[in-house]
Amino acid sequence: MKFDYLIVGAGFSGCVMAERISSILGKRVLIVEQRNHIAGNAYDYFDENGVLVHKFGPHIFHTNSKKVWDYLSAYTEWIPYYHRVLGMLDGEMVPIPFNLNSLNILFPSTKAKAIENALLEQFKLGDKITILQLQNNKNKQLQNLADYIYEKVFHGYTVKQWGLRPEELDASVTGRVPILISRDNRYFQDKYQAMPKHGYTEMFRRMLKSPNIKLLLNTDYKEILADVQFNKLIFTGPIDMYFEYKFGQLPYRSLRFEFEFHNKEEFQEAGQINYPNEYEFTRITEFKKLTHQKNILGTTIAREYPEVYKKGINDPYYPVPKKEYREQYILYENEAQTIKDKVIFAGRLAEYKYYNMDQIVARALHLFEKEINTEKDNKE
Amino acid sequence: MKFDYLIVGAGFSGCVMAERISSILGKRVLIVEQRNHIAGNAYDYFDENGVLVHKFGPHIFHTNSKKVWDYLSAYTEWIPYYHRVLGMLDGEMVPIPFNLNSLNILFPSTKAKAIENALLEQFKLGDKITILQLQNNKNKQLQNLADYIYEKVFHGYTVKQWGLRPEELDASVTGRVPILISRDNRYFQDKYQAMPKHGYTEMFRRMLKSPNIKLLLNTDYKEILADVQFNKLIFTGPIDMYFEYKFGQLPYRSLRFEFEFHNKEEFQEAGQINYPNEYEFTRITEFKKLTHQKNILGTTIAREYPEVYKKGINDPYYPVPKKEYREQYILYENEAQTIKDKVIFAGRLAEYKYYNMDQIVARALHLFEKEINTEKDNKE
Ligand SMILES: Cc1cc2nc3c(=O)[nH]c(=O)nc-3n(C[C@H](O)[C@H](O)[C@H](O)COP(=O)(O)OP(=O)(O)OC[C@H]3O[C@@H](n4cnc5c(N)ncnc54)[C@H](O)[C@@H]3O)c2cc1C
Ligand SMILES: Cc1cc2nc3c(=O)[nH]c(=O)nc-3n(C[C@H](O)[C@H](O)[C@H](O)COP(=O)(O)OP(=O)(O)OC[C@H]3O[C@@H](n4cnc5c(N)ncnc54)[C@H](O)[C@@H]3O)c2cc1C
Repeated sequence: MKFDYLIVGAGFSGCVMAERISSILGKRVLIVEQRNHIAGNAYDYFDENGVLVHKFGPHIFHTNSKKVWDYLSAYTEWIPYYHRVLGMLDGEMVPIPFNLNSLNILFPSTKAKAIENALLEQFKLGDKITILQLQNNKNKQLQNLADYIYEKVFHGYTVKQWGLRPEELDASVTGRVPILISRDNRYFQDKYQAMPKHGYTEMFRRMLKSPNIKLLLNTDYKEILADVQFNKLIFTGPIDMYFEYKFGQLPYRSLRFEFEFHNKEEFQEAGQINYPNEYEFTRITEFKKLTHQKNILGTTIAREYPEVYKKGINDPYYPVPKKEYREQYILYENEAQTIKDKVIFAGRLAEYKYYNMDQIVARALHLFEKEINTEKDNKE
Repeated sequence: MKFDYLIVGAGFSGCVMAERISSILGKRVLIVEQRNHIAGNAYDYFDENGVLVHKFGPHIFHTNSKKVWDYLSAYTEWIPYYHRVLGMLDGEMVPIPFNLNSLNILFPSTKAKAIENALLEQFKLGDKITILQLQNNKNKQLQNLADYIYEKVFHGYTVKQWGLRPEELDASVTGRVPILISRDNRYFQDKYQAMPKHGYTEMFRRMLKSPNIKLLLNTDYKEILADVQFNKLIFTGPIDMYFEYKFGQLPYRSLRFEFEFHNKEEFQEAGQINYPNEYEFTRITEFKKLTHQKNILGTTIAREYPEVYKKGINDPYYPVPKKEYREQYILYENEAQTIKDKVIFAGRLAEYKYYNMDQIVARALHLFEKEINTEKDNKE
């Protein structure tokens, strides 16, 4: 078969580029996807009870980029949704990220008031600060607050999430734990926050409508590489796999989801509840809270269990945030540079980096403009 | 790309053969499907309200073949379901096919009793007879009943369904209208009657699990034919298209479905209600009645409007049952014979024939044994 572009992976990275290439350049694209569905890790589907669930963990769309918002809006309508996360701390459910409300729920009121005043003396209402800023603070009360949050919100969750003690991770991760100087209980503060009205998968389906886009499912790209002709490869799979692990396997953390249907109106108070300290799972998602599905009796939840990633057994989810692994990745990146006229590496697996969906869309649009739609540049 | 078999079409015909070829022979198959989904006309999906609906009209599984039942049972569990159809006749809802209950609802009781007795004198309780048997009957009462059923149940429905008067269709169609000499209100009397527990599409997904089966969606086979290497082609698309309409286009009837969500428990009394005489649509299906989905508030229905088939505009559904078209098909069939070592034609479009799902599965299994799994025959 002959195509202008062969794209490996039908996630956001692959599908956005396929859409651009077919509709802006009118060129022919073959997308090869090893799974039996499109949408990558954003894949959602209706389970046997009619509840729209996210197969690979809860995906909440949020962005400050009007460009990304406008782009995706061509393929979906939206349902406004503000994500709220509660954390189970000392037997109380408190807003996460930790904010002034969390403070008031957890501490005796005089103490809470005093800390609140100390915070407001140094920071503006509405500021999003990091735990590092409190740890390094001269105010003893704020140092103590930092210790409390580190201990109760961060430490246990991190150990479960990564299977590592915080000290073993990059300092940047540890220092980045956010604290909100406000009573804003939303998990995100982005300008655009919403869920695609008919689900992510349907949004992808509409992106891929062009007759110039062919979609080969159930297929690892290596199985067909020798038999397809194309001018350029866009690779959104794992970069270490592309180079046959010549510099070793890049470490990932994996996840296991335990889905459960409950015959009741509501399972929990918020779309997501984190359990930093109890149980083996890190969080429970209740999908109806995210999607506002109104007409279903009963509700489906998922418990999320972090796991060691084992190639061929489970899926790679999160790159492990350690400097040495990033350095290992750089070896691959350098290798990729040597073939950049033939292969574009893009996406969370190809760049060994956690990206939010909006970032990955922005990146795909950017790559399209910079690396692919170059004739236009020449003309200008 | 190199495959042992190239299969055109991901409906029952194509998928059953793909499954057999990959799992029994361990050979490599590429399925090419022009739509963006598997399951052919049996495709179902959850609509935006979480109701499992059938995109191409209500599909009820029924068979007397233990072989077909056992085969499909490897890929799905089942929900027992007896299909009931009511017809709106003279403002009353009566069981279809016309049976002794229909008689008693529509006629004054003494008259109904008399006709019932006349029927039971000539036929056994439980018999399924044809309208032809009544039309040719010596008993005047039964002739009148035949006229009544022809007029009220058959005539209007046929004109809507085919856009033709009954006289213009094959006599076999007209004569075949069934009448049930019983109080059995079920539409089918088959030994196995059920719906796949997780839907048809999920059943297909499980059929296609083998790594030997690759699935190319959004693609007309002609687009890739020149670039794929294979030993044998299995073609389940329209046979006239395969031969580039050299003997003219085979006439089909098409359908348009109007889906509608209602915010109530139940829309109608039965899974299917036929309107032989009123409205432009022929029938209304209420999907929850078929699938027994219990936990959805509200219900989705579809009104079914027969239409003229126009190539490229809508889909071919039913071959028009006229002798001259069958003869036209025979020209294609003869042509197919001349290339039978290279191409197997199978399925409702390739054979220009209405088949129920169980028949098409039986046929695919048979073709596999007879035409494909021939090494086994040699060994025996
Ligand atoms: C648990 C979890 C929760 C998340 N929640 C959010 C959220 O709330 N909000 C948000 O903005 N972002 C969220 N994300 C991030 C989001 O999932 C990513 O931004 C997005 O999926 C990245 O898209 P991608 O196309 O780069 O990668 P992917 O979606 O992973 O797509 C890559 C595709 O390539 C395929 N592939 C890989 N190797 C091969 C091969 N050899 N041959 C063929 N195909 C191959 C894979 O099967 C996959 O489908 C979350 C991520 C995770 C893990
Ligand atoms: C309205 C309606 C209701 C029905 N209800 C019932 C029922 O209740 N019970 C029952 O047993 N049966 C029912 N049937 C019959 C059932 O749909 C068929 O038996 C079954 O779909 C036949 O399967 P198939 O694989 O032969 O054809 P299809 O399911 O039509 O599959 C053929 C596939 O080939 C694809 N294709 C065609 N041309 C090309 C091309 N050039 N390139 C690539 N792909 C191509 C098509 O897109 C299609 O997906 C019903 C049929 C209709 C129309």
